Amino acid sequence: MRRIFLGLEYDGTAFAGFQRQARGERTVQGVLEEALSKIPGALPKVVAAGRTDAGVHALEMIVHYDTEDTVPTERVPQALNTLLPPDVRALWAREVPQGLHARKSARWRAYRYRLFNRAEPSALLRNYALWVPTPLDLSALEEATRHLIGEHDFAAFATREKRGTVREIYAAKVRPVGEEVWLEFVGSGFVRGQVRGMVGSLLSVAEGKQRPEWIKELLESKDRAQAGPTAPPQGLYFLAAGYRPWPATRVP
Amino acid sequence: MRRIFLGLEYDGTAFAGFQRQARGERTVQGVLEEALSKIPGALPKVVAAGRTDAGVHALEMIVHYDTEDTVPTERVPQALNTLLPPDVRALWAREVPQGLHARKSARWRAYRYRLFNRAEPSALLRNYALWVPTPLDLSALEEATRHLIGEHDFAAFATREKRGTVREIYAAKVRPVGEEVWLEFVGSGFVRGQVRGMVGSLLSVAEGKQRPEWIKELLESKDRAQAGPTAPPQGLYFLAAGYRPWPATRVP
Repeated sequence: MRRIFLGLEYDGTAFAGFQRQARGERTVQGVLEEALSKIPGALPKVVAAGRTDAGVHALEMIVHYDTEDTVPTERVPQALNTLLPPDVRALWAREVPQGLHARKSARWRAYRYRLFNRAEPSALLRNYALWVPTPLDLSALEEATRHLIGEHDFAAFATREKRGTVREIYAAKVRPVGEEVWLEFVGSGFVRGQVRGMVGSLLSVAEGKQRPEWIKELLESKDRAQAGPTAPPQGLYFLAAGYRPWPATRVP
Repeated sequence: MRRIFLGLEYDGTAFAGFQRQARGERTVQGVLEEALSKIPGALPKVVAAGRTDAGVHALEMIVHYDTEDTVPTERVPQALNTLLPPDVRALWAREVPQGLHARKSARWRAYRYRLFNRAEPSALLRNYALWVPTPLDLSALEEATRHLIGEHDFAAFATREKRGTVREIYAAKVRPVGEEVWLEFVGSGFVRGQVRGMVGSLLSVAEGKQRPEWIKELLESKDRAQAGPTAPPQGLYFLAAGYRPWPATRVP
């Protein structure tokens, strides 16, 4: 039995999220497991580095599955892409030791949130960025973002979880890109809803409704009710995950 | 009666092109005229600077219509956006002299074609760029592109038209943008199919299948059968059009 790690890009627009749903909605896991079920010898059961909600995209989600198929590993992406719908693409495949686990072995995960910041709305980006017509105060946004770096209890920004809400953010960047502003986070892991929760409150700062220190106060409050609204899903991208002894994956 | 010029952005993916079809397919003109028909006093008849085929996008299409409505011109975009589907957005509106005509008065038009140039296909760009896995020879591409600048008979690249196939290209640029290469053309006007026809043949040069001088030979041949295939629609964007005495529009 070989274990295969796969890099996947997907457009989350037409998916009810990554994770298979009881009610049979269209999910990334569902279409991927259906594709694997057509490869003789592959176990149609995948585990992902992270979950993404409905409408959230991935530039390089990492998943693993086990297989006894005879497809050479370097041909797996092409074989899978003939079986997958066009809004999911396999980018690469790599055989890894059985002990490596896409979720449990991930040392870091990275997300990007795209803000589209101009007066007029966009038809082309409606599913791929959040439109913010108010001019953003980038230096306040940067100052606010720095408060998130480090180990914190992110209860104020996330849905409570069995495994608790303490996580570590290693890096957080504000990147102006043309008419957009990208917020990028690299961390040990993220609680469900955390990135969108942080972005919602950071936006209140960038729009001048709150001071940058408010983010620090929210962290200390651990109170979801005091924070800003959750940013909508279409601006969010799962960027990459990292494993040891592996080198970092392609993005970023 | 006032004449209004409108700047429009649209995502061409779910449209059967700009122009209204006899068979009732969904077109940009159709949804725009339907929206205008809900504004009392506006004539639901629009004229565009250029036509776009099914799947082709626009960052700033210019259209005009006539109206006796009472909506202040600066509020027109917002009013229209509440009536339009989300894949068409009105960006701006301006009252112009009755003599100005979105098609006949346009002095120049600009198009962009996006090539997505990496080994792996993209889920997110499948409707927004042409995937080209072969590494592109940018200097050959630039040399080939320069042959297109100037006044030429573009019969080798386009569908024949009543108004002939002689046009002038004022500027043509090759722009590497991350993993993409953008081909941009500014010209007096473009024959139907011309930009996609030129891009199809330029790609044969960039992929090393033809020499750059082949583009010059094709122009001289005036023979559509000798040129390369027509590039598919999803990589093409109508960028902008220019009018006098008007300043150039926002893009590019």
